[in-house]
Amino acid sequence: MAANPQFLKFVDDNQDHLIDRLAQAVAIPSVSGNLSYVKDVENMAEWLVQQLKALGATVEKRPIGKHTIEGQEVDLPPVVIGQVGSDPKKKTLLVYGHYDVQPALLEDGWKYPPFELTRDPEGSGRLFGRGATDDKGPVLGWLNVLDAHKQLGLELPVNLKMCFEGMEENGSENLDKFIESEKDKFFAGVDCMCISDNYWLDTKTPCLTYGLRGVNYYEIRINGPGRDLHSGVFGGTVHEPMTDLFAIMSKLVTPDGQILITGIKDLIAPVTEDERKKFEAIHFKLRDIEEAVGAPVTIYDDSIQTLMGRMRNPSLSLHGIEGAFSAPGSKTVIPASVKGKFSIRLVPNLTIKSVTDLVIKYVEEEFKKLGSKNKLEVVLTHGGEPWIADPNHYSYRAAHRATEAVYGQTPDYTREGGSIPVTLDFANILGLNVLLLPVGRGDDGAHSINEKIDTSNYINGTKLLGTYMYELAASNE
Amino acid sequence: MAANPQFLKFVDDNQDHLIDRLAQAVAIPSVSGNLSYVKDVENMAEWLVQQLKALGATVEKRPIGKHTIEGQEVDLPPVVIGQVGSDPKKKTLLVYGHYDVQPALLEDGWKYPPFELTRDPEGSGRLFGRGATDDKGPVLGWLNVLDAHKQLGLELPVNLKMCFEGMEENGSENLDKFIESEKDKFFAGVDCMCISDNYWLDTKTPCLTYGLRGVNYYEIRINGPGRDLHSGVFGGTVHEPMTDLFAIMSKLVTPDGQILITGIKDLIAPVTEDERKKFEAIHFKLRDIEEAVGAPVTIYDDSIQTLMGRMRNPSLSLHGIEGAFSAPGSKTVIPASVKGKFSIRLVPNLTIKSVTDLVIKYVEEEFKKLGSKNKLEVVLTHGGEPWIADPNHYSYRAAHRATEAVYGQTPDYTREGGSIPVTLDFANILGLNVLLLPVGRGDDGAHSINEKIDTSNYINGTKLLGTYMYELAASNE
Repeated sequence: MAANPQFLKFVDDNQDHLIDRLAQAVAIPSVSGNLSYVKDVENMAEWLVQQLKALGATVEKRPIGKHTIEGQEVDLPPVVIGQVGSDPKKKTLLVYGHYDVQPALLEDGWKYPPFELTRDPEGSGRLFGRGATDDKGPVLGWLNVLDAHKQLGLELPVNLKMCFEGMEENGSENLDKFIESEKDKFFAGVDCMCISDNYWLDTKTPCLTYGLRGVNYYEIRINGPGRDLHSGVFGGTVHEPMTDLFAIMSKLVTPDGQILITGIKDLIAPVTEDERKKFEAIHFKLRDIEEAVGAPVTIYDDSIQTLMGRMRNPSLSLHGIEGAFSAPGSKTVIPASVKGKFSIRLVPNLTIKSVTDLVIKYVEEEFKKLGSKNKLEVVLTHGGEPWIADPNHYSYRAAHRATEAVYGQTPDYTREGGSIPVTLDFANILGLNVLLLPVGRGDDGAHSINEKIDTSNYINGTKLLGTYMYELAASNE
Repeated sequence: MAANPQFLKFVDDNQDHLIDRLAQAVAIPSVSGNLSYVKDVENMAEWLVQQLKALGATVEKRPIGKHTIEGQEVDLPPVVIGQVGSDPKKKTLLVYGHYDVQPALLEDGWKYPPFELTRDPEGSGRLFGRGATDDKGPVLGWLNVLDAHKQLGLELPVNLKMCFEGMEENGSENLDKFIESEKDKFFAGVDCMCISDNYWLDTKTPCLTYGLRGVNYYEIRINGPGRDLHSGVFGGTVHEPMTDLFAIMSKLVTPDGQILITGIKDLIAPVTEDERKKFEAIHFKLRDIEEAVGAPVTIYDDSIQTLMGRMRNPSLSLHGIEGAFSAPGSKTVIPASVKGKFSIRLVPNLTIKSVTDLVIKYVEEEFKKLGSKNKLEVVLTHGGEPWIADPNHYSYRAAHRATEAVYGQTPDYTREGGSIPVTLDFANILGLNVLLLPVGRGDDGAHSINEKIDTSNYINGTKLLGTYMYELAASNE
């Protein structure tokens, strides 16, 4: 079912009004996890509540506990939940977004004050401001959809449940508990879910995102002498923890990114024909990644292999060493105990546990081969499972049709190389198909200075979210 | 020629007086390289000048230029030069010491105020205080010798030239230039040299030290992406500088300390029969090094191999990485450019240049094998040549006899694993045999809290230096 043409026309005709809404939202510096902005985050939640009420939703601000910032205990930003419609004949769509933002200061190098939405005076259509694309723009997309339907006197084609949090930029503390506790209450009866909190791969091609890599973070701890030693006095007499650490960490991954830990490759789910086609169809040029990276240092000369390296395959990165000399200059220390840090990005069917078992076994075996008298410990300091959704689910097919209708383009089917933990929480706790439907472009600079959203993405994004609802409603599954 | 018995008796009979002299010296907090103590360092030089004058030496304070401390330009501490006797029939001995000390604060954990010489109340005979052993005690040993001879109305058996500096703890800035400029003036006519600024290997056995390892410090710099990357987004797509760095640095040295850089082993001078015997004769138990290191992590179970590992063979230590993640916690960064730091301790016949040529060649070849698109640079950031003296020179033989006379023990012949750069400056610029004749014990804690010298070492050390002069005078070479 195509979107109601009146809706699309309303969005086109009311662009300034919709941009003004975004300007209001950006003007509230809702930086989470910072004592100076606690009141602003609260104000932002309240602004959202008032907006949603005015647009006809039933809304609640729900407290989710306390946390400590800079030594002071304060309330966590509330979760704002809202609902429009409860017709049992309609599908029920759950959407998520966040109303908090990353910190931003003009002196960091912003061209314009970060908390004043600024239209690019050069006419590019870019709207600069903190939160413009992450994630106020997409959240307001939903508000814009409600606005249009209310003003046009139209019913929504689906029941809409909304869950907006204010702690996404600081680890979504307690959100999982909230989802769990509301599983059979607010979240009851939801058919599928849509999250708009990631980005197109490039600047031209809309995409649907159906996977996220997980991540296991490890420390290899090697303890030797009782204290740091001077290499002049003890060099050549003792087993040095650094030598052991380099020997082991050099055996984890090859310079061309092949993970050497026995058994990990065998766990990777085979690539299906459907997956391969989706990767081959992605609009992506090697030049794009070289530009993003800032140097011609890609492992593969082939764009599909590069995409799969980022999205479909595990990767292992060495991050650093704690306890060794790390300052400028020349210090002749033999560090007594060091922690080497590395992480592995997980993809199906690698799990936190299966990978950790293999890592510990491999590292311990490699250490034994060294014949060192030092002590070794391998520790998983953080684990996050990978996630993948069925990209042929009716929700994805609806988003596919909506993208074609709004943009006249076939969407890329992408996966994110990094993690978006809330996705897993919703998917796993509620047992839902989750669609990641980005609104902004790959160059929006979500956590950087000069964050922006293009006017066309904000306006077409609003149309996309609305059209997706109509396509969802039309689905017979 | 045995020392004059009157001299030895004087030292025994005047212990309190000699210890009082050390207390006076320790009371002046002559911490070099620290703006707050500039005046104290000057006072210490002046105290030394007055003492030497009173003991019959001709003395001069010589300015050696300026340096900048904490942004302020100040005079370098003067070199104090003194002389007693100029009889062309006698040998002329040059001695060196330093009157500056390491920083020390009671709150660092000292048992007693660091700038008040404190006799151990438990009766061990230890004299605690900053500089007690490094290097005020040994310097005062020479003053004590002069004191005894003056009070007894005895002539010194040699001509004595003294050179005491106040910047040893801060790199002996400009001392090399001073030596060079005075080569044919103050330093003219010197036959041999004695420096007391190192320590016995253990706590029981006097030693003569005839070698020092040099040190070359290197950085392996690897540059990849234009900026730090997020491992979620880019892990698996680019050549990571950290992976390259670990691959290379793991190929420099084995966990049991064998240097893998091609050609370095071939440069090591073969061990002579005389050398081997000297190593075999050293009083040293593996337990000693395990205690010093604080854990049973020695490479060798054999004490001679351990000693040669420390003194006779080159060693390679990995010190750390600049530019990588080094803090506690878990950061998923792909560092864009990193500097791996390592150093190689040099022994005859390894030179700064020959080793550097081999290091650069080897590292560049190993890097090529990786097939990485990143950029590599290998840089020598500091170089110091190794030094070895002829331990059968008459000066060493004189010290050997003096040690037997004072301690009733055969001295160990040791080498230091670390560097004492002034030794090379004197040896090379003046072309002298330099004897390193330690006064303090291996557990004196020169740069630590609770630095001490044992009363017996201070008193016997004074006798040793005096007796060495007599033995030197008796030598016919």
